[in-house]
Amino acid sequence: MALIVQKYGGTSVGSIEKIRAVAERVINTAKQGHRMVVVLSAMAGQTDGLIRLAHQLNRDPDPRELDVLMSTGEQASVALFAIAVKSMGHEACSLLGFQAGIHTDDLYGKARIHDVEPGRIIRNLDQGRIVTVAGFQGIDGRGDITTLGRGGSDTTAVALAAALNADVCEIYTDVNGVYTTDPNICPKARKMDFIAYDEMLEMASLGAKVLEIRSVEFAKKFNVPIHVRSTFANERGTMVVAETKDMEKVAVSGVAYNKNEARVTIRKAPDQPGIASRIFEPVFKAGIVVDMIVQNTSQDGMTDLTFTVPKTDFYKTMKLVTDVAVKIGAERVLGDEDIAKVSIIGVGMRTHAGVAKKMFETLARENINIIMISTSEIKISCVIEEKYTELAVRVLHSTFGLDADPGKTSQQ
Amino acid sequence: MALIVQKYGGTSVGSIEKIRAVAERVINTAKQGHRMVVVLSAMAGQTDGLIRLAHQLNRDPDPRELDVLMSTGEQASVALFAIAVKSMGHEACSLLGFQAGIHTDDLYGKARIHDVEPGRIIRNLDQGRIVTVAGFQGIDGRGDITTLGRGGSDTTAVALAAALNADVCEIYTDVNGVYTTDPNICPKARKMDFIAYDEMLEMASLGAKVLEIRSVEFAKKFNVPIHVRSTFANERGTMVVAETKDMEKVAVSGVAYNKNEARVTIRKAPDQPGIASRIFEPVFKAGIVVDMIVQNTSQDGMTDLTFTVPKTDFYKTMKLVTDVAVKIGAERVLGDEDIAKVSIIGVGMRTHAGVAKKMFETLARENINIIMISTSEIKISCVIEEKYTELAVRVLHSTFGLDADPGKTSQQ
Repeated sequence: MALIVQKYGGTSVGSIEKIRAVAERVINTAKQGHRMVVVLSAMAGQTDGLIRLAHQLNRDPDPRELDVLMSTGEQASVALFAIAVKSMGHEACSLLGFQAGIHTDDLYGKARIHDVEPGRIIRNLDQGRIVTVAGFQGIDGRGDITTLGRGGSDTTAVALAAALNADVCEIYTDVNGVYTTDPNICPKARKMDFIAYDEMLEMASLGAKVLEIRSVEFAKKFNVPIHVRSTFANERGTMVVAETKDMEKVAVSGVAYNKNEARVTIRKAPDQPGIASRIFEPVFKAGIVVDMIVQNTSQDGMTDLTFTVPKTDFYKTMKLVTDVAVKIGAERVLGDEDIAKVSIIGVGMRTHAGVAKKMFETLARENINIIMISTSEIKISCVIEEKYTELAVRVLHSTFGLDADPGKTSQQ
Repeated sequence: MALIVQKYGGTSVGSIEKIRAVAERVINTAKQGHRMVVVLSAMAGQTDGLIRLAHQLNRDPDPRELDVLMSTGEQASVALFAIAVKSMGHEACSLLGFQAGIHTDDLYGKARIHDVEPGRIIRNLDQGRIVTVAGFQGIDGRGDITTLGRGGSDTTAVALAAALNADVCEIYTDVNGVYTTDPNICPKARKMDFIAYDEMLEMASLGAKVLEIRSVEFAKKFNVPIHVRSTFANERGTMVVAETKDMEKVAVSGVAYNKNEARVTIRKAPDQPGIASRIFEPVFKAGIVVDMIVQNTSQDGMTDLTFTVPKTDFYKTMKLVTDVAVKIGAERVLGDEDIAKVSIIGVGMRTHAGVAKKMFETLARENINIIMISTSEIKISCVIEEKYTELAVRVLHSTFGLDADPGKTSQQ
């Protein structure tokens, strides 16, 4: 008998029929003798509808009140789900964030869970009930409702799994697992059976939108195994787990890409202490998130500094940086929106030599010019011209031995 | 500086524009220096929509979970209202039932408030905020969400007014007050300036659907003055208050009618002790609400017993009563759906003699036959043929001096 925490996203509970199907699935698992905690998101489209209403009143609605409004979506989901389960003859009970003991800080709209008191959940489980908990919401020290930000239901599920010492946290979604790369651009993409937390974190932040990144951080911290799987199929998905020796046998586990960044270069800035901080000060102040930063060693007392920002912040950044460039006497500022970042990821990189060399050679063989390079312990990212993105992903996927066997190509 | 509790119903907050209009109105009152607590219902149509969703899963959904679902309607209203108020530059704060300290029993769907802890409301008022409280909902001893039943927001408002010792509880609705009778059938109906709690209770239970009856009971118990007025006009409405000497100067304050009942008569039942209880046992057991009961004195050891039930329960009642009639040896059972109850109401009846006589004479003059009569301290009800309802209401309204001056006829 296991304690299983399951989380179903908005598309999985997007209609009364789907809620009924999920209820049936959960009851079947419960009947095998497992204790079930089911975290739900709002029905697909509902959260957006609520935001639209609020925006009709104010473009920047009060965050505390917006959370009160938004949390109604998950509240409706769990109530309907409990009604469905009880209609099918199984005991059930819904709990909202404040009832499930999910305590957060008071950063409305992006609150962080700091503590879970699972007493009430356990008491309900002990009474043989399927317990369904509203995802995405908690309560702060003042007794106010908070929400955890988009994708927060994943975090709710993992936090509950940690607090309950659950055997597994299953995240149900509309794909059947985590792939070695995006199957839409690489038909040979393969569903992974296992992925390490750190690899998942890199995959998630690089654009593979299967799991909310904060939920993976949480899972890593409390060593909660996550099973990412499809609501609409019964097959095994991908286990996100702590690193094992086995994982290190493979140098590269996946290939990720990101087309949502733009590049800014300050050419020939005087190479003096404090110059970088002067350049970035107005950018950070404007709340713009800078991703890669590369500074070359100086020549003739001058240095080039290149960095990437989200495309949506490109023009704003160009304006800010051009102003600074004039002040510090840099030669000029260049920008480029037509770039993409391609990354290879794998905990095996720590022990395998020559991975970077192989990546660069592979791209060179296809005449793909590398504009920027950045590396971490388990990842190498190259910025290239955007038009080569798909080609780069496919050749890297193949080079590092990730292609599926021709006979059993996986598809989403 | 007064403390004012206002309640706005579903049609008053039925759209974003209307929410904005209510916010403006409340801010204007607050700017006159008053402390404002605003109780809101769900946006018109929302509660029905939620019930429909639940009914798709089960015709008889779990009551605890139904309350979790239903309470989202008022939650959305108060969040949107607080957003609107803050957008207009005034401080505001929404509180849900559990945050506003509204403690109820655990009768889901029709919970009763047993205690209000207004500490958090007061702290927010002290900080200069307009406090908006979700109507219709509370929390029980286990920390579960409860709802108070249809019209429960009126009760929330009155309960808060009592707990806060408010100067007045204003109930905003789509009519501009309580009328001496239904203006739709009597053009000379007049808006009352004052009505006593007991009169309002009789008016409400007799079909004048302005105020939820439980809220009036609550107001009477705690002596909370209620001001019933229109959301869409600025004029004074009707004050529902404790009885005053002035009120007794008038014999009759209002004329009410009810077309939703049917009559059942058991003819020639043996007049023995316990006969009435045998007849009513199966009716009460089936949960049917019996209104008027009239038993004539017996002749030849036989008695006739007549009573009224809601029209919707008529056929069921006829069946149940016919079964009993056979068992007890009554002659036969008669039924009639084409009846109406017309009532005159007034605390002045206690001191004015001859009111009943005047009522019977007035009806006789119009050749309206009286089928049943029932009286209480402040009310006389006559059951008549349904087709005479409008005529009866108009002549009684005129006879008891309730008609508006021709120059200033009030209209809804």
